[in-house]
Amino acid sequence: MTSFVPPDASAPKADAEAEDAVETRARQEADDPHSPVARFGPSQPLRLDAGVLLPHLQIGYQTYGELNAARTNAVLVCHALTGDQHAANLNPVTGKPGWWETLVGPGKPIDTERFHVICANVLGGCMGTTGPSSTNPATGRPYGLDMPLVTIRDMVNAQAMLLDHLGIDKLLCVAGGSMGGMQVLQWAASYPERVFSALPIATAARHSAQNIAFHEVGRQAVMADPDWRGGRYLAEGVMPYRGLAVARMAAHITYMSDQALHRKFGRRLQDRATPTFGFDADFQVESYLRHQGEAFVQRFDANSYLYVTRAMDYFDLAADYDGVLAHAFKGSKTRFCLVSFTSDWLFPTEDSRTIVHALNASGANVSFAEIESDKGHDAFLLEEPELFAIAHGFLDSAARAFGLPPARGR
Amino acid sequence: MTSFVPPDASAPKADAEAEDAVETRARQEADDPHSPVARFGPSQPLRLDAGVLLPHLQIGYQTYGELNAARTNAVLVCHALTGDQHAANLNPVTGKPGWWETLVGPGKPIDTERFHVICANVLGGCMGTTGPSSTNPATGRPYGLDMPLVTIRDMVNAQAMLLDHLGIDKLLCVAGGSMGGMQVLQWAASYPERVFSALPIATAARHSAQNIAFHEVGRQAVMADPDWRGGRYLAEGVMPYRGLAVARMAAHITYMSDQALHRKFGRRLQDRATPTFGFDADFQVESYLRHQGEAFVQRFDANSYLYVTRAMDYFDLAADYDGVLAHAFKGSKTRFCLVSFTSDWLFPTEDSRTIVHALNASGANVSFAEIESDKGHDAFLLEEPELFAIAHGFLDSAARAFGLPPARGR
Repeated sequence: MTSFVPPDASAPKADAEAEDAVETRARQEADDPHSPVARFGPSQPLRLDAGVLLPHLQIGYQTYGELNAARTNAVLVCHALTGDQHAANLNPVTGKPGWWETLVGPGKPIDTERFHVICANVLGGCMGTTGPSSTNPATGRPYGLDMPLVTIRDMVNAQAMLLDHLGIDKLLCVAGGSMGGMQVLQWAASYPERVFSALPIATAARHSAQNIAFHEVGRQAVMADPDWRGGRYLAEGVMPYRGLAVARMAAHITYMSDQALHRKFGRRLQDRATPTFGFDADFQVESYLRHQGEAFVQRFDANSYLYVTRAMDYFDLAADYDGVLAHAFKGSKTRFCLVSFTSDWLFPTEDSRTIVHALNASGANVSFAEIESDKGHDAFLLEEPELFAIAHGFLDSAARAFGLPPARGR
Repeated sequence: MTSFVPPDASAPKADAEAEDAVETRARQEADDPHSPVARFGPSQPLRLDAGVLLPHLQIGYQTYGELNAARTNAVLVCHALTGDQHAANLNPVTGKPGWWETLVGPGKPIDTERFHVICANVLGGCMGTTGPSSTNPATGRPYGLDMPLVTIRDMVNAQAMLLDHLGIDKLLCVAGGSMGGMQVLQWAASYPERVFSALPIATAARHSAQNIAFHEVGRQAVMADPDWRGGRYLAEGVMPYRGLAVARMAAHITYMSDQALHRKFGRRLQDRATPTFGFDADFQVESYLRHQGEAFVQRFDANSYLYVTRAMDYFDLAADYDGVLAHAFKGSKTRFCLVSFTSDWLFPTEDSRTIVHALNASGANVSFAEIESDKGHDAFLLEEPELFAIAHGFLDSAARAFGLPPARGR
């Protein structure tokens, strides 16, 4: 584990040592919108699973709620594939609410009046954390494909450096859905002593062949776009918008259930009574998908999409433990609560059950709930009262067991 | 119904009337590989659902087995989205076996020693039947997007013209899977008196929102390719290979089940023990998908992909009957046998049940089997002994009821 280095925002920027200093400040640059950023220099390189050192790491993050004096109320929230650190504040790029405001906020299940919530942009991302759109210090130009590939474990190791930097030794809880849930599992496996409780939602201990296949389609769509330019589009002043939009459209279908698509759109036509007999968006579902694609390319970097999907594909927690998932949690004292959704076909309940079986085999403390929902994989981001009740109960119980006073007014 | 015009291959080609003649001959042109072709001139236009007339229609088709003297042993086989007329012979483009040789051939369930099997390339296709890559007689150049959009009903009406041309009044059976099954249902609804029995497999009476969404992703992938050129790529000497390959890859995932992908590939790596930490095809499933995409673009026209997917999206049989599917089969004397597969998530069993309920409500003669299989939607094309047994039994029983002698040796 990287040793804790206190923030030193006053370090002179021009100083040769400053490059190596850990610093936290709000930046105004485009790749780092209105978030605090932690920077780590060459003396604190991140050793990547790809076998190389990342000498200049920066991590964009957000916090919500006060850290208590004992530093025992910290909750780390991990985001999914295209999420970012703006879990519970207005997103500075899209102007939309944070992606997990359903669950995180004052009086919410992850209660920011009680807990100190941290959310960091993942390694490989494009919202302030080092990724392929970051400047390669060796060339002064964006990394592009010269950025080494990253894994879920690399993402978690980077988050551990951030926590060291913030002076947080142990987390009351790590929570996240989808790829966020993969990080939760990796946290529990890599740093069991730092994780008092873990809430992995709608996730899996390894990415399935079907999910790898869908990701590969998305990557091929991006790389087929001539404006991708072998990954050098930023340096060449273009953007593979069309390919990235197609990738997003394909992925978006997998986030919803057939039932949800049917309920939302059915076969309803767009603003007319009869089909146009053309290739415009005749059906509402087509128009919706096109909008999803167009909105996405305004906020996400195409190469980050390649890197982060690849990290998910590589995720296979058991592989690091002789192929036995239970060994990943051997002797763990972490409390686990797993949640899946009946209509989630991307990360079906079976994936969660596999994790529960492994946790049971390792003697861990685990509860599991499959929630009846027709909202598909996206259910973890949506209005799901049963999820809220489970998360609230689990967090509250963990907080009391960790020595926190009961929530006010309860 | 178009009246029967006998083939007249001897009509002088230069004659003004020749343009209007129905002719059957093998052509050597690239767009018509080694198949008989039926041509219909302006005096026999096809009225399309789009509200326009198609004045020059040609249909590429194949036949297998002898038509009996009473013309009572004809079975029409309808192909799926990217299929063609080469159901049971070596495909002249790919050099691979016909797409339904599992089911069609000597001694097979659709026994070409007993039945006269006809399979025609669908309207909008690219294997000899009029489609967007055909020459637009008005311009002398490929239609491209000037070809009017077609529907499943248009395809069936074109097939009815072919049967008239071939002198076949009534079909012993119409059979097909997926989009082929849609044609079977449309045949039974539009021409009940011409269909003695119907075998729709792994299909639906209307395309779901999710399926429309997947098709839209494919179309967007094609149209996002700069080499698509607004549909004029043939005239401009290019081909949107990359976009079409991405479309095929996305579609191909939907044809398989998660279990089949897992069984076939799991998370196995391609020719190595550890991942490359790059964007080459690391996993076998990636390599397989890329191959599927690359092979497909060698044999299929990109605009045909747009047209035929659109035809499927528009398919909603009940819509033509006041929204009541049972009305489509009112008073029908056709014998129906429906088949679905447990792991088919593109055309799930529920879709077949909906059809069965409608047929029951209309008092039709119907049997239904859901076959246990982990092969997904593609199961209808694969080695499925239960499907073979059902098809054999259904065809044999229909043949006897239609007055055919028992099969030899049985």
